[in-house]
Order: sequence, then C-alpha cells, then structure tokens
Amino acid sequence: MKFVRYGEAGAEKPGVLDAEGRIRDLSGQVADLGGDVLTRLDRLAADGPVVDGMPRLGPPVAGTGKIVCIGLNYADHAAETGATPPPEPLIFMKATSAITGPTDTIYIPRGSAKTDWEVELGVVIGRPAKHVDEADALAHVAGYVAVNDVSERDYQKHRAGQWTKGKSCDSFAPIGPWLVTPDEIGDPQTLGLRLSVNGELRQDGSTRHMIFGVARLISYLSGFFTLHPGDIIATGTPPGVGAGMSPPRFLAPGDEVVLEIDRLGQQRMQVAQG
Amino acid sequence: MKFVRYGEAGAEKPGVLDAEGRIRDLSGQVADLGGDVLTRLDRLAADGPVVDGMPRLGPPVAGTGKIVCIGLNYADHAAETGATPPPEPLIFMKATSAITGPTDTIYIPRGSAKTDWEVELGVVIGRPAKHVDEADALAHVAGYVAVNDVSERDYQKHRAGQWTKGKSCDSFAPIGPWLVTPDEIGDPQTLGLRLSVNGELRQDGSTRHMIFGVARLISYLSGFFTLHPGDIIATGTPPGVGAGMSPPRFLAPGDEVVLEIDRLGQQRMQVAQG
Repeated sequence: MKFVRYGEAGAEKPGVLDAEGRIRDLSGQVADLGGDVLTRLDRLAADGPVVDGMPRLGPPVAGTGKIVCIGLNYADHAAETGATPPPEPLIFMKATSAITGPTDTIYIPRGSAKTDWEVELGVVIGRPAKHVDEADALAHVAGYVAVNDVSERDYQKHRAGQWTKGKSCDSFAPIGPWLVTPDEIGDPQTLGLRLSVNGELRQDGSTRHMIFGVARLISYLSGFFTLHPGDIIATGTPPGVGAGMSPPRFLAPGDEVVLEIDRLGQQRMQVAQG
Repeated sequence: MKFVRYGEAGAEKPGVLDAEGRIRDLSGQVADLGGDVLTRLDRLAADGPVVDGMPRLGPPVAGTGKIVCIGLNYADHAAETGATPPPEPLIFMKATSAITGPTDTIYIPRGSAKTDWEVELGVVIGRPAKHVDEADALAHVAGYVAVNDVSERDYQKHRAGQWTKGKSCDSFAPIGPWLVTPDEIGDPQTLGLRLSVNGELRQDGSTRHMIFGVARLISYLSGFFTLHPGDIIATGTPPGVGAGMSPPRFLAPGDEVVLEIDRLGQQRMQVAQG
C-alpha cells in the first residue's frame, strides 16, 4: 500500500492511494500516520472517501523522532568525495525540523554557496528496535520513502567540525511522496534511484551498491539506541552529487530538482533563496 | 517559577513548585509543558492541587524536537581533551530518544568501556527562533534545565567518524529536575555547575567560562535552522570529564552520579549495565 499525508503543512491528514491512484481519506480510521499506527498499516483499508482535487502532499510519516543518516554508504560515492569507505556505518543526525513535503520548496540558506542534493532510500521504522539481529531486522520496517538529504557542503565540512550544520537547515529533508509498505517493495537492495536538476540527470544509482544494506543498518543502529516508530534511516546516496562534479555545481534559486526511486514515487521541488 | 513533569515515564503530568517546594498539579491549566505552552509559562499559576508523596520526576519539558549540543565550549575543557577551541561553535545532535528524568538510571551500553559524564547548562526554547540577533536572543528562552550529556568516548571518536554514536544511546540525556524560568536565573553566565561520582567531585565549573555564551549560541544556531519551542541547547561542559583524568576513569554499574547547577536543582542517578 502507498500511504500519503495531504493538506496544508502542519495540518496534514492521513490518506492512502487506491487501485486507481486516487487518495482515499483515512481520517475515519486513524488520527495520523505515526506512532503505533505504523505497526498496523496492513490492517488499514483503502475504502475511505475519495479526496477531490490535487492537494499538497506532506511528508508521509508523522511523529518522526529522529532521522539517522548513513554517510558514504555507496563505495562509488565515497570515491567521488575523496573519502575512504568507512569500516562500519558512519552515522549522523539530521534535525527533524528540516522535514518537508515532496513538492515543497528547497530553501538555500542565507549566505550559502554550496547547497547540494543527495537522493536516498529512507527506511521508516514500524516496531521499536533495540539489539535486533540482522535476520530479524526487516520485520521492524513500516515502509520505505524517498528522501533528499540536502546538504550544504561548506557548513558540513568547513564550519568547525561535525556535519550537523550542513545537514539540518530548514527544508533540507524532503520526504515522500509515499510511504510504501514492504510487500510492494520486496528486496530493498534492488531499487534504482535517480535525481535530476533542471532536466539534467545527475544521480542514477541502485541500492544494490550499498556497502551496508538496510537489514544490516537497522541491526547496527539498534545496538546504539532504540529505533522508535516513525524514525527514519536515510541510507546514503549514490554518486552524482554536485560536490563530486568537475567543476563542482550546486543549487541556485529557480532550479527544479526531480528525485525518484523505483516504486517510491517522485519528488519535484523548486529551489528558492531562504 | 520551577516547573516539573511528574509520574511514570511516558505518562508524566505537568506541575509547578509552590513557595513551600511542594508540587502543584497543572493538569487543570495545561495538557503538558511543551509547544505553545512554553511561550506563556509566566501566565500559569501555582495554585493547583498539591501532589501527595514523592512521585518520580521526568524530564521537565515535553515535545523536544531536537537537542543541539555545543562541543568544546569551555576553553579549559577543550584543553583537557587535547582539542583546540573551535573558532565558531561546534555543534552536534543528540537523539531525543536518549532523554530521561533526573532520578532515572543511566545505562551503560553493552560492550561499552568508556561511558563518561558531562554536566551542562540546558537552554529550553520558548518562542521560535530563526535569524535572531544576539541582542534579542534571550527573549526566545522559555527557561533553563540541567543536562547530563552522557558520552561514550570510544563510540564518539573511534567508531567511524561523527560523534552521534557516542552521544545518543538510550538514557544518555538526563534532563531536569526543573525547568526554571529566566526571571529566577538572571544572567545565565553566572551559574556554578558541579558533578560528582560516588561522592567524589569531578566537575566544578561556572558558565562564566563559556567561550560562546547563551545569547550568542541562540543567535548562531538560528542562522542555520529554526529553533522550535521545546528544543534544547546543551551548552557544553566544563573540565573534569572522565576522559580528561589521568588515568582516564569512566562509569561502572553501581556508581551514583550527582549533578547540580546553581538554581536549577540536582540530578541523582544510579548507573547500571544496559
């Protein structure tokens, strides 16, 4: 099933796509697509009222407590950044206040000259995970989402250590359009990921090239802290980021970023000065 | 005023201390001490029913979206870790899933040999802050809290880059006991901070020695992202952490950690194996 949250930012309602691709309202069944609801998505029915028109879509999951990002998780992306692939997953956090919807605006921070893109497979946790074996890890997944791990490279690398500043600016975490349940995805290591800027293809990778796969990441992270329902793991990006181009290229106001992942839908976002 | 949240973990109720130090229940006035309520704490009255007995205290703020931590913000602490003081604030995130109350248990992660302590002044945001001038910054503060920025030093430094892993383990963010409003604190750069382990004083500093003060930190951070009500800034730790001792000393099961900050109350926590 493909779940959405639709309506104005901050006041989204839960919905689900029906067989014809129409949004069916889920407000009669659940308050929102977060918390315990994520453990029982398969019991929701796509039979609510059809939603008219083309409402804005928000992030398709509510109540995200943390976004855990994996750095340098594609060997070919590590190479383009000049970094050595890490011996174990490299993790960092992205502020949840950066979350935005799949057709919203990406804002370039004031003074930024190096705002970059990163298409990533996002894993949404359903059941709490702590010290989970790799073999059991995928049972803790509520579904998958497309994520753009928008990154300011100067802030990330040249503003006094740690990547947080370059990863957490407002609008730097577009998520969606859909939260897709695992039964529609199958093996999460077989998904093509693409991102274009102004119609030029910049990233064209596959999750098969991850160094650490989804099950391994869940198991690994759950050894450090509890993953809660609604938490999102952004699993790293394939090659083709702006910082890796020769010469480097970055986003500018007026650009259009289109991001898509097989079976997870498409983001289409305008870039503006923040 | 001194606000508390009392009751079982995950089901805390809002309260306030009265002139006699008794907890008065605030449930009749507000649902919880988070969100917009943090913008109008001064309009709450300490006249609810007196709470009987000695209930557990939880973290005194609800709905924390992010914990932004400042690294190496005391020159003398930077020296003890062998680091150079940063030219601008060094920031990192701590997962909100690490939050716990001021008398709960600190859990040493499985396999950890270097779980350490860090007493810190915590700033709780009241009004949203984005691109705020330093002169206006303190108007965005709802109040102050004591924070222990519990840290696993091997995870922080020797597990493939970025500090996240060493900072975000479950129970690594004890907060409280009280959320104290700014009128009771006065100048936040005049507070003594102390931490002892098994009765031995390990940290004894003052916020006057911060490299970047509270107003500067709020202004600086608000240039990167919006600070929302309930967000917490952990402003860095003075000297005396275990990693800086010669030889280094760390927490062990059975230890008692007592942390206190002038006017912000005391944490008293047992250490156990996680």
